[in-house]
Amino acid sequence: MAGSSFGTILRVTTFGESHGAAIGAVLDGFPAGMPLSEADIQEYLDRRKPGKSPIATKRAESDTVEILSGVFEGQTEGSPIAMLIRNQDQHSGDYRNLQDCFRPGHADYGYAVKYGIRDYRGGGRSSGRETAARVAAGAVAEKFLKSLGIDFLCYVSAIGPVKVHAKPEDPDFDRSLILSTPTAMPQAESNEEALRYLSGCMAEKDSSGGEITLRIHGVPAGIGDPVMNKLDARLAAAMMSIGAVKDVAVGDGAAVSVARGSANNDAFLPDCGNGIQTASNHAGGILGGISDGNDILIRLSVKPTPSIARPQQTVDTEGHPRELVITGRHDPVIVPRAVVVAETMAALVLLDSMMMNMSSKTEAIRRFYGRV
Amino acid sequence: MAGSSFGTILRVTTFGESHGAAIGAVLDGFPAGMPLSEADIQEYLDRRKPGKSPIATKRAESDTVEILSGVFEGQTEGSPIAMLIRNQDQHSGDYRNLQDCFRPGHADYGYAVKYGIRDYRGGGRSSGRETAARVAAGAVAEKFLKSLGIDFLCYVSAIGPVKVHAKPEDPDFDRSLILSTPTAMPQAESNEEALRYLSGCMAEKDSSGGEITLRIHGVPAGIGDPVMNKLDARLAAAMMSIGAVKDVAVGDGAAVSVARGSANNDAFLPDCGNGIQTASNHAGGILGGISDGNDILIRLSVKPTPSIARPQQTVDTEGHPRELVITGRHDPVIVPRAVVVAETMAALVLLDSMMMNMSSKTEAIRRFYGRV
Amino acid sequence: MAGSSFGTILRVTTFGESHGAAIGAVLDGFPAGMPLSEADIQEYLDRRKPGKSPIATKRAESDTVEILSGVFEGQTEGSPIAMLIRNQDQHSGDYRNLQDCFRPGHADYGYAVKYGIRDYRGGGRSSGRETAARVAAGAVAEKFLKSLGIDFLCYVSAIGPVKVHAKPEDPDFDRSLILSTPTAMPQAESNEEALRYLSGCMAEKDSSGGEITLRIHGVPAGIGDPVMNKLDARLAAAMMSIGAVKDVAVGDGAAVSVARGSANNDAFLPDCGNGIQTASNHAGGILGGISDGNDILIRLSVKPTPSIARPQQTVDTEGHPRELVITGRHDPVIVPRAVVVAETMAALVLLDSMMMNMSSKTEAIRRFYGRV
Amino acid sequence: MAGSSFGTILRVTTFGESHGAAIGAVLDGFPAGMPLSEADIQEYLDRRKPGKSPIATKRAESDTVEILSGVFEGQTEGSPIAMLIRNQDQHSGDYRNLQDCFRPGHADYGYAVKYGIRDYRGGGRSSGRETAARVAAGAVAEKFLKSLGIDFLCYVSAIGPVKVHAKPEDPDFDRSLILSTPTAMPQAESNEEALRYLSGCMAEKDSSGGEITLRIHGVPAGIGDPVMNKLDARLAAAMMSIGAVKDVAVGDGAAVSVARGSANNDAFLPDCGNGIQTASNHAGGILGGISDGNDILIRLSVKPTPSIARPQQTVDTEGHPRELVITGRHDPVIVPRAVVVAETMAALVLLDSMMMNMSSKTEAIRRFYGRV
Repeated sequence: MAGSSFGTILRVTTFGESHGAAIGAVLDGFPAGMPLSEADIQEYLDRRKPGKSPIATKRAESDTVEILSGVFEGQTEGSPIAMLIRNQDQHSGDYRNLQDCFRPGHADYGYAVKYGIRDYRGGGRSSGRETAARVAAGAVAEKFLKSLGIDFLCYVSAIGPVKVHAKPEDPDFDRSLILSTPTAMPQAESNEEALRYLSGCMAEKDSSGGEITLRIHGVPAGIGDPVMNKLDARLAAAMMSIGAVKDVAVGDGAAVSVARGSANNDAFLPDCGNGIQTASNHAGGILGGISDGNDILIRLSVKPTPSIARPQQTVDTEGHPRELVITGRHDPVIVPRAVVVAETMAALVLLDSMMMNMSSKTEAIRRFYGRV
Repeated sequence: MAGSSFGTILRVTTFGESHGAAIGAVLDGFPAGMPLSEADIQEYLDRRKPGKSPIATKRAESDTVEILSGVFEGQTEGSPIAMLIRNQDQHSGDYRNLQDCFRPGHADYGYAVKYGIRDYRGGGRSSGRETAARVAAGAVAEKFLKSLGIDFLCYVSAIGPVKVHAKPEDPDFDRSLILSTPTAMPQAESNEEALRYLSGCMAEKDSSGGEITLRIHGVPAGIGDPVMNKLDARLAAAMMSIGAVKDVAVGDGAAVSVARGSANNDAFLPDCGNGIQTASNHAGGILGGISDGNDILIRLSVKPTPSIARPQQTVDTEGHPRELVITGRHDPVIVPRAVVVAETMAALVLLDSMMMNMSSKTEAIRRFYGRV
Repeated sequence: MAGSSFGTILRVTTFGESHGAAIGAVLDGFPAGMPLSEADIQEYLDRRKPGKSPIATKRAESDTVEILSGVFEGQTEGSPIAMLIRNQDQHSGDYRNLQDCFRPGHADYGYAVKYGIRDYRGGGRSSGRETAARVAAGAVAEKFLKSLGIDFLCYVSAIGPVKVHAKPEDPDFDRSLILSTPTAMPQAESNEEALRYLSGCMAEKDSSGGEITLRIHGVPAGIGDPVMNKLDARLAAAMMSIGAVKDVAVGDGAAVSVARGSANNDAFLPDCGNGIQTASNHAGGILGGISDGNDILIRLSVKPTPSIARPQQTVDTEGHPRELVITGRHDPVIVPRAVVVAETMAALVLLDSMMMNMSSKTEAIRRFYGRV
Repeated sequence: MAGSSFGTILRVTTFGESHGAAIGAVLDGFPAGMPLSEADIQEYLDRRKPGKSPIATKRAESDTVEILSGVFEGQTEGSPIAMLIRNQDQHSGDYRNLQDCFRPGHADYGYAVKYGIRDYRGGGRSSGRETAARVAAGAVAEKFLKSLGIDFLCYVSAIGPVKVHAKPEDPDFDRSLILSTPTAMPQAESNEEALRYLSGCMAEKDSSGGEITLRIHGVPAGIGDPVMNKLDARLAAAMMSIGAVKDVAVGDGAAVSVARGSANNDAFLPDCGNGIQTASNHAGGILGGISDGNDILIRLSVKPTPSIARPQQTVDTEGHPRELVITGRHDPVIVPRAVVVAETMAALVLLDSMMMNMSSKTEAIRRFYGRV
């Protein structure tokens, strides 16, 4: 089934396996008229790259993007924007020992059952590498949304037990750290503490999970399409489609289960000239599946990297027992690299929903076509 | 935007407002050949009805379903199955005071901005009543899946601070209680404790959130369509599209953020004749977006009913302050009634994904058409 | 497979069998703010009804539509508009003799193979009756498009060998005749000649094919979504999905195969203050899949009613020979009743494409959201 | 709007402009397990290439395809198959004079209005070159269908007034000529006559239209999804989405409008051991939108190449008059090169519909999952 596409009038399709010739994305339906260069996209891809940190894979992918179509004289032209990233560092040999066994915590078994054939090199299609293609497409959407005054703040809010306690408005919340620390945490102390924790994990040939927080500021009210394509439903699908994500929270998330209505309701405040606002934002900016003008707040929980260096019990494709030692290059934590993936996937959902919202009133259609 | 449909080759469309003439659903793409009567569907609808319990709305809807199409001589015939539920108890007068103000915690404001017009009677389209139409459609899917040996166990696992501690395999987990207790909790003690808690809420003119747990047993391995239509991504969208759901967890959910890879990985066990199985199920039956044959485990957090009896601060449609007193009929907790909604939405997703999976191998297509 | 839906952001789903409880449609994504009553829709349905003419079936269906949802205080509210038409004249007994044989020229055999079960009463789902549901949905779209100054002229241009030679601008082309003549021909002479021809067909227990011409005036330039959802591609699908249509022509249609480029090209004329226009309209208003502001011109060829009164050779479901005598109520020509179906299907396609076009430029999005 | 995708569970997305970096396609949902190499695809692309004939453009594109993904160890693996064709012969300079004027018969004006920006080099996205990407994707589908015993016979049946009179079963119908004659006509005489006709066109700096006939043999009965995704409706959309196609006929096509039911109905013949067959095939293998096991018969009318060498009257983007002389490389007839495009687009539609049909019966799903 055509499972690699996402979106309705703005639609991204990704392709590519971890150790094939290339990965890439086609972004179809993007509006015409935005300046776009490869540098715009590269900036986002670079955020996803392993870099030189001690906690990231040593795979040396330059992840250089080439725009193949959809841009004419430096501007998007309304046709599909195809983006290509060649795979360079294809140490397929590393994976020969995985050919006939199933790695715990990976998609190997499901792929084998479903397709009967399985690219065992680095996970093939199920590799986290596929997310680079999403980032390329999402970067285009996010660039445009930023130009509309919409701000994406996305960061690692926890690695294992180490949490970022600072809120964005706190003095020790330093947004610039997201791009400069290996953990993508916006707080210097948390970053250091998390690095220490990760060192411990690595020493034990183990890996760690974590949490990502996303805040989108400046979203107009009215976005989202009840009752099935609600904004939160679409964001949940987008986030859960990122490998290793096992929980998606909107606003207060799971805490609502122990809350009372009187505390959970966000009271409306009188309009003092800046529009209708609320006294709190437990809802995370979405009510009934439609944005209410508040910040959109999302939290993702990401599982620990399943590829760990310590020996694991597994079976081969015949079901016989096997001890597995994974020798490839693997991050002790993938959460920092997933930040830009979550951010750009959210941008794709949001722009698509904003485009769809333009025809929700007869009066808007009438005005657009100058037939009033 | 066409936001009221869900699914690809099995597709449900719901329609209807809380206090309009009727609500209903069209289930398109359902396979031919299954016996189906209105009683099959009514059984599920009755689970969603308020009933006579002290904790449910007094709205007296009989919620009687009529099958309009798609069934011939008692069997589904492959054409769209349209199901109609007339609204009967339309006390529109109750809602006149909501006409020009926005209820906190409700979708009123978003709808007003998006559409410019808003059915203020009982929330109109955003009412929880819409979920009855989902249940009708999902009941059809679930009936078929049950006949394939797939079992849905769905229950309230928490109301406010009161949790169900028993696991399905425990002696004090009584599955029959789900259908008979007002809380839809499968444990007698928890039910009683929760009822006491809810009495307290009601005494304080307040409401409570809660948690729903869903376990699907007997799902074949190989279901789900990476990388965007992963089984967990689609389930997350389906669950988050249910009003009041603010968190969706798969398997261990948010707990993975503090887990280590060595603990989170589900080790494969040697095949002793029953197929390949795992020693644990932290993943909740889905890896890389594809089912692995384990139980599928989902948890939803549901916010407290926003309609509470105590006076609330809000604004009117002009942004002027207003004290709001909601006098309509509202549940102090909606979690018990949402159980069957979650269960049947999951059935719709699962059957659609199972149907899609049938063409994932050339060999299966070849065999189906007898051209080997 | 979910085959009963059509459209992207404006999406119609029809349901119902010829002799089931009801037929109907759900129109999802229709914009909020248009006044809509049942009378608006009934007007279109009445055009499709057999009426009292000698050339139409005697089936006495009142085809009364009920709006179930999506309209609040007389206006569309942005939620799905469900429309219900109860079946009344269900002479199922008439069809008992068709139960175990396949009618030539009908869908019986395909349905039997595909679904294994077949509603033999009046064709079940494959009945022309289903188009009443399309008309109901399309009427809503067409009402809105008319209010934008878009004019739909749709008529029977041929029945058998009898052609309407008048062009819309000719004096003997009388538009009012489309609604008042049994043939839906806009020319008095052609109507009479066609009626004589049809009398002859009936005397020979036979039926006739015909042709429908559709002209849409006032469509803005720029509508259509290359390269797959081109406006002509979508119109072709919509037209060919109407039962009995076997040919769809755009502009000059099949005549282009013998034309030369110098004659087929529509030369652009200098803009004299009314915008850019062309000297001719061989293209039928669509070039490269996008409207160019000219009239959209479509022609459909409709096959003769397959149900004829004379005995036919066929087989039963076991493949044994059978002489078939169809005794039910059948039109000697269905073309006149298909006019309003073609017209309203075109309206659905056009409005959907116009809604999609609103987000084709970044500048339009920027302006819509007031972020310039 | 995302207009460059086609299909439901087998879905193709094309990208690329005539004179951009590359064109290509992503084929998503193709089943796993079919051997596939670039040579398989190249064979089809070579049929679309201009070649060395006097009647084809001189553009020297090698049209070499590279498979970027979806194939592992020589077999399709169920993930998206991305195919890339670099543009090589980019004489953009040739098109500078088209920058600020609209070519008659081309999509220039519509693109300018819709997107506000227009790639004037060779038509940009609206170029016939885009169809190479469709051919690449469709070649994959056709290879598989052929292995199921389904045969595609597609050829030019007319160029201007010159028609192929031979039927496939006639002795002077030579199928091998389709691939070897410049006209893609299967009859030696017609080919020669057509070449003479085209010489005349060229001498007059003019171009010619033509007709393509497609016959698909061996399609199982039961394919197609009423009432909107009927097989003929989907084929019509696919064919009409090919640039320059202005008419699509199924079976007898427009001739049905003058036919009588007694002649148009295809009588069923008694089953003599080879299944149920019909005495004729006026319907073209599709009744009620579902295949009936007969040959599928489609005919397309293709307009004459709009780019002709003689001077034409047009306007510039300001609406001022302009004499246009097109100096680029253009075919006097594009019909022969469109043959493989129509053939492979049909393959994409057919395979998608065949995959969808697999879940049309509960019993088939039950059997597939071994739960009988």
